[in-house]
Amino acid sequence: MLTTRTDCLARDAADPLAPLREQFDLPAGVIYLDGNSLGARPKAALARAAHVIAHEWGKDLITSWNTAGWFDLPKRLGDKLAPLVGARPGEVVVTDTTSVNLFKALAGALSLQGEQPARKVIVTERSNFPTDIYMAEGLSSWLDRGYQVRLVDSPDDIAAALGDDTAVLMLTHVNYRTGYQHDMAAVTALAHEHGAVTVWDLAHSAGAVPVDLNGANADFAVGCTYKYLNGGPGAPAFIWVPQRHHAQFRQPLSGWWGHAAPFAMAPAFAPTDGIGRALCGTQPVVSLALVECGLDVFAQTTMAAVREKSLALTDLFIALVEQRCADHPLGLVTPREHARRGSQVSFTHPHGYAVMQALIARGVIGDYREPAIMRFGFTPLYTSFADVWDAVEVLKQILDDEAYDVAAARGAVT
Amino acid sequence: MLTTRTDCLARDAADPLAPLREQFDLPAGVIYLDGNSLGARPKAALARAAHVIAHEWGKDLITSWNTAGWFDLPKRLGDKLAPLVGARPGEVVVTDTTSVNLFKALAGALSLQGEQPARKVIVTERSNFPTDIYMAEGLSSWLDRGYQVRLVDSPDDIAAALGDDTAVLMLTHVNYRTGYQHDMAAVTALAHEHGAVTVWDLAHSAGAVPVDLNGANADFAVGCTYKYLNGGPGAPAFIWVPQRHHAQFRQPLSGWWGHAAPFAMAPAFAPTDGIGRALCGTQPVVSLALVECGLDVFAQTTMAAVREKSLALTDLFIALVEQRCADHPLGLVTPREHARRGSQVSFTHPHGYAVMQALIARGVIGDYREPAIMRFGFTPLYTSFADVWDAVEVLKQILDDEAYDVAAARGAVT
Repeated sequence: MLTTRTDCLARDAADPLAPLREQFDLPAGVIYLDGNSLGARPKAALARAAHVIAHEWGKDLITSWNTAGWFDLPKRLGDKLAPLVGARPGEVVVTDTTSVNLFKALAGALSLQGEQPARKVIVTERSNFPTDIYMAEGLSSWLDRGYQVRLVDSPDDIAAALGDDTAVLMLTHVNYRTGYQHDMAAVTALAHEHGAVTVWDLAHSAGAVPVDLNGANADFAVGCTYKYLNGGPGAPAFIWVPQRHHAQFRQPLSGWWGHAAPFAMAPAFAPTDGIGRALCGTQPVVSLALVECGLDVFAQTTMAAVREKSLALTDLFIALVEQRCADHPLGLVTPREHARRGSQVSFTHPHGYAVMQALIARGVIGDYREPAIMRFGFTPLYTSFADVWDAVEVLKQILDDEAYDVAAARGAVT
Repeated sequence: MLTTRTDCLARDAADPLAPLREQFDLPAGVIYLDGNSLGARPKAALARAAHVIAHEWGKDLITSWNTAGWFDLPKRLGDKLAPLVGARPGEVVVTDTTSVNLFKALAGALSLQGEQPARKVIVTERSNFPTDIYMAEGLSSWLDRGYQVRLVDSPDDIAAALGDDTAVLMLTHVNYRTGYQHDMAAVTALAHEHGAVTVWDLAHSAGAVPVDLNGANADFAVGCTYKYLNGGPGAPAFIWVPQRHHAQFRQPLSGWWGHAAPFAMAPAFAPTDGIGRALCGTQPVVSLALVECGLDVFAQTTMAAVREKSLALTDLFIALVEQRCADHPLGLVTPREHARRGSQVSFTHPHGYAVMQALIARGVIGDYREPAIMRFGFTPLYTSFADVWDAVEVLKQILDDEAYDVAAARGAVT
């Protein structure tokens, strides 16, 4: 029995998350399937920014570091984010960028070996988001102790790549191109069996899929707040370290925000207890404060409800594309198996770049990733079942009419 | 001949910078002498934030990375900041935090020695801002090649601390507590004579005093935008690397924003040409964009004009305090010599903390630093000569009346 647009409207009417869409500002005439790259704007963000700028900065000036709680923002927002990723209070800080936090997390993972590290290899996937690999390369080549990065070509190759030489298994939980989701608990257990420590990048997981870092007995994690968490463009990232590693881990970006007594102004560094030692320097308060607006929307639902709708949306998108665009050379890249799927769907097409540009021109915003991959993100807080229908309808029209310009020059790809 | 308040008003009437005060939002009844810690809010910041949030993020969404120039902001703002510190276009990026940039700059300085570094010592002052020392400790202890940090107790001891073992001389140009300003050209020449590379922290210099990095033949510099540059609380910092080091320097925070082709998504890192290799990860766009509002005010004047008024303000403050509070145990910490003075004045008082709290309670906002130092920042864009008179009048009243609570508990000091 084929799905109709009327069916989609009925599912929207029955969707318990549908009212949350009202809390986001989305332009008219746009179907936004790129929340996996930059989340939509919570309406509350505008008033929050105005308050921080006009009142906290403009009127209260320097006193706002204390009175408005600016100093505590990284930890307070971290505690608010914690339930979304299976973290305890006091285990997460929102700070710096994902890349910088990954550097800290990798260094922290290496530091658990103590002064005489016997294990020198960081294992990761060749298909990982490149900056993760770059940061691992940067850290390992600089440390000059024979550290190296070992790349594997497929999730199936991870087990064989782990050995007595492996210090860290660094993985992105949900792959940015394919939407493949690792089994965090099983892979972490595998790493631990080989004596390795895990570092998980949750850029495409936090707010997208249920994550249980402590349940999986993971070791370190970092993530992004500007994608599914809707924190705003380039909003500060987060880093998680479980309590069991707090006393032991060290990281070289040892700035004053990670000091036990930052205002004592002592010339020797002494790391603070707990997650605070993952902090470094003064944070961009306006951007940081806006992260809370996105988290406040998540506080009104559960990741279980988000996941249920996410799978319904991605199942529907896959089914409709395969039904309605069956005559076209589209290849599903994202796993059909629910447990292995994130909250995006990627299809290849020989002219994927041109087709995506045509979609964007008609108001269906996805994005493109080499090679030939059209990427569609599904964000249950503000994407409807009717959006899915309408997006596939536009895709079908473009493909049926060959209404895309293969010769068009490629601009910068975001 | 003693100065009167009428004299101060006359100087304000003749001050060519006085009209710029209208471009800042300052609360009524406050004399703000803490712009050396957090600069006042440019009025333009509110509308700019609203545009970035409502239009660029809310309406244009992901396309704003290109259409609104988000990707180019670090370089575009860097070029706008460059003239304030004697940098050329293409030598500065606004990005990350001062601490993180210092890590990159130190690493960059060490990288100039190549694969077989013979010099292992980073020389700095014990009185440097602590996070600078902490970052140097973090980098050197992690590198595990025998690097060490050597602390000197006074500017006069720097020459003796430099030797064949010295890799880097890392100094903050204007000291955060005392307001002492190094002679950048002379000290850089001294370092170079000993074969060392210089790293300058301009946190209390950029927008405060004229800086000529290229004229001084300096090697690396970092700085802050949320103090004298009025970029907003915790606004992203900057890093400068001169053209002559661009091809050679490397730094370990090798994220995708520093890659030659960030969207090619290649698994191997290849640094881009030029200052771009000092970039790492995705930047907090809202906070970053607000930096421009502060820079736009500086574009309406010159650092020579700012310096002329700054020295007039600090000269006046010193003279008035010494005239009108002569009976009290105040000790001038900041150099009287113009060439050695930044844009702040620090006085010790045995009850400095309590006196500062009393000043703040009466609307004169300075701050306190151990030991016993009351710190007053003078920001020529929005501080008037009458402000100086009035601040000293309040100080005199508090001291004459002993209207401060020595027993008061110390709160968090900002």
